[in-house]
Amino acid sequence: METIRWHKGIIVTIDQTELPNKLVHLRLRSPGEVAKAIKGMRIRGAPLLGAAAALALAQAAYRSKAKSRRRLIYDMERVAELIRSTRPTAVNLFYGVDAVLDYARRLREEDVGKTVRSVVDRCLELVKRDAEVNLALSKNGAALLGGGETVLTHCNAGELATVQYGTALGVIIQAHRDGKRVEVIATETRPLLQGARLTAYELRRAGIPVRLISDSAAGLVMQRGMVDRVILGADRILATGHVINKIGTYTLAVLAGENRVPFYVAAPTSTIDPKSTVDGVVIEERSPVEVLEFRGRRVAPRGVGAFNPAFDITPPKFVSAIVTEKGVSYSPFDELRGWAEA
Amino acid sequence: METIRWHKGIIVTIDQTELPNKLVHLRLRSPGEVAKAIKGMRIRGAPLLGAAAALALAQAAYRSKAKSRRRLIYDMERVAELIRSTRPTAVNLFYGVDAVLDYARRLREEDVGKTVRSVVDRCLELVKRDAEVNLALSKNGAALLGGGETVLTHCNAGELATVQYGTALGVIIQAHRDGKRVEVIATETRPLLQGARLTAYELRRAGIPVRLISDSAAGLVMQRGMVDRVILGADRILATGHVINKIGTYTLAVLAGENRVPFYVAAPTSTIDPKSTVDGVVIEERSPVEVLEFRGRRVAPRGVGAFNPAFDITPPKFVSAIVTEKGVSYSPFDELRGWAEA
Repeated sequence: METIRWHKGIIVTIDQTELPNKLVHLRLRSPGEVAKAIKGMRIRGAPLLGAAAALALAQAAYRSKAKSRRRLIYDMERVAELIRSTRPTAVNLFYGVDAVLDYARRLREEDVGKTVRSVVDRCLELVKRDAEVNLALSKNGAALLGGGETVLTHCNAGELATVQYGTALGVIIQAHRDGKRVEVIATETRPLLQGARLTAYELRRAGIPVRLISDSAAGLVMQRGMVDRVILGADRILATGHVINKIGTYTLAVLAGENRVPFYVAAPTSTIDPKSTVDGVVIEERSPVEVLEFRGRRVAPRGVGAFNPAFDITPPKFVSAIVTEKGVSYSPFDELRGWAEA
Repeated sequence: METIRWHKGIIVTIDQTELPNKLVHLRLRSPGEVAKAIKGMRIRGAPLLGAAAALALAQAAYRSKAKSRRRLIYDMERVAELIRSTRPTAVNLFYGVDAVLDYARRLREEDVGKTVRSVVDRCLELVKRDAEVNLALSKNGAALLGGGETVLTHCNAGELATVQYGTALGVIIQAHRDGKRVEVIATETRPLLQGARLTAYELRRAGIPVRLISDSAAGLVMQRGMVDRVILGADRILATGHVINKIGTYTLAVLAGENRVPFYVAAPTSTIDPKSTVDGVVIEERSPVEVLEFRGRRVAPRGVGAFNPAFDITPPKFVSAIVTEKGVSYSPFDELRGWAEA
C-alpha cells in the first residue's frame, strides 16, 4: 500500500473516507484539490499531512507559469497560505510547508526551470524520508515490547496516516514482524471512526489480532487488566512533553495513569513543536454535523447542537515514553527540544 | 409523555430504538413480547425495566388460565424466569420480578380471580410508585444545584428510562423547574447512542440547553473547566457504593476525579443491591454487531471482531454522592444498606 505518491505533477492518494468499504484512489491535480481533500479528511494523519503539504508545494512550483524565481516563490507562498489554512493543529503540515519554502528561498539558482526541478526533487526526498523515519521509530518502539502484550490504540496512526510504515501501528507491526506475539484493542474513535475503519483494516491486512471497542469501553478494559500498553500517535508534541492528539487521547492517558498501564506516544521528530506553549496551540473544532450524524444519517433530534473538538492535550505527567526515530524520550523529556527539526 | 402503561392486559410503551426519528408506541400483548422488547433495547433504563418486569408478571397473571392459586403462581414463576433471563445487570428488573412474586405468594386469597386482580393492582401501584420515587429523588438532587451549573450526563437516565420524571435528568429538569439556570453537555453514548437520541430529545422538549459531544470529548470538556457536575443514573448500586452503570461511566468518574468535578449518581433505592459483591455482578456483553455496524450499515472491515460490554463498575472512591428518594448518601455510603428495599 502506497498512501501517497507523485506522478508527473499529480498527487495520487487514497480517499480515507471511503475505507474500508472501497479503496478509492484520488488523483489531485492542483493544490486547491489537495487543500479540499485535507479539509474533508480524505487525506489525514499528521505525518501524511506533512507529506501532502510538501507535495502541494511541489505542485505549486510544477504548475507555476512564473518567468522569474521571485514570482515562483510568490506562487509557492500563496499555496503555502492555502495549505496552512486547512487544519490548524497537526504541526507536521506547517513543518512540510516551511521545509519546502525554506529550501526554495535558499536556492541560489536563478533559472526557473532548474529551481522547479530542485524543489520537486526536494519534496520527493521529504516524502521518502517520512517512510525511513517511520521505519526507524517503529524499530525503536518495537524494542519496548517483549512479546505477549495486548496494546490499546486510538484513532489511526498507521500506514494510512503516513507515507509508509505508520507510527503507533508501525511499532506494533514491527514487533509482529520481529516474531513477537502482540494483540490489539482498537477504539472505534468517534466521530469519524478511524479506528473501526482504518486501524482495523490495516491490522487485519497485517495479520495481527484486533478487537474493536467503543471509545467508552477503554476504561473497563484497562480496569480489568486486559491492556498491557497504550500506544498512539501525535499531531503535535511540545518541548514540555505535552501531547496533542486525536480527541480522546487525554481520556485514555488519565485511564492509563489510574490503572498503571504504560502510555507510549510514537511520532517522528517533525511532530515536535519546540516553539509553542500549551496556550498557543489551536485545537481545531470541526463541524457539529460529524457528531449529530453517523455516516450521513441524522442521529440527534433537529435543533440540538454539538461541540466537536478534534484534538485534546495530554499533560506530560501521563506520558510514559515518547518514541521517535532519534530514540525514546522519558519524563522529563529533556531530549525533545534538541530533537526538534525546526 | 407516558413511558409505560397498562391497558386491559396490554402493556403500552415507546419503542426507544426508533426515537428521535419516530415516536412509535408498542402494544405488547404477552410476556414473550415484553421479553423480546427488553432484549432488543426497545424498552431500556433500569427503573423502566423494573416497571416492565412487574407489568409482565401482571400480564402473566391476567392471561393465566389457572384454576388454582398454586397453578397461577407457577405460571407467574415461568414468566419470572423468562424476564430474568433477558438482561443480567440492572437489578431493578430482578427487584420488579421479586416484588410481584413475593406479593402473590404471600396473598392468603384462594380465589384465583381475586388473586389476579390483587396482583395486577399491586403491579400498577409499583409502577405508580416509580414515578413518585423519581420525583422525590429529583427534588433531593435539585437541592444540590445552586443554579448556573453545566452538568455532564451520560446515556439516558430520563423519563424514557423510567415510568416518569427520570433520575439524573429528573434532577436536572427539577432544578430547571425550580428556576435555576442549568445547561447540559450530553455524551452521545456509543454504541446505541442513547445520549444523542434520547437525552437530547428529552432535554430539548424540556427547554434545557443541551450540547452533544462524542464520548471521547468528555476529558477535554472537564479539563477545560466546562463541567461543574457529572450526574448520571445507575443500573445497580452495591452496599459498598460501587456503581454499575452504562459503559463509559467508570471513564467519566476517573476523569471527574482527576479534574475535581463532583460526580453524582441519581437512582431509586430499588437500584441498591445489598447482597452482591463486585465479583458477583454479571456485566452483560452485547452483540459485537452493535459496535461493528451502525443502524444496519457495516463500519468495520469484514473479519474484525468487537468486544461490547454494556456496563462498567465505578469504585466508590470516585463517587461524590448517591442521590435517592430517601436522601443523599456520601462516602463511605453507610446509609445504602439500610435504604435497600430487598
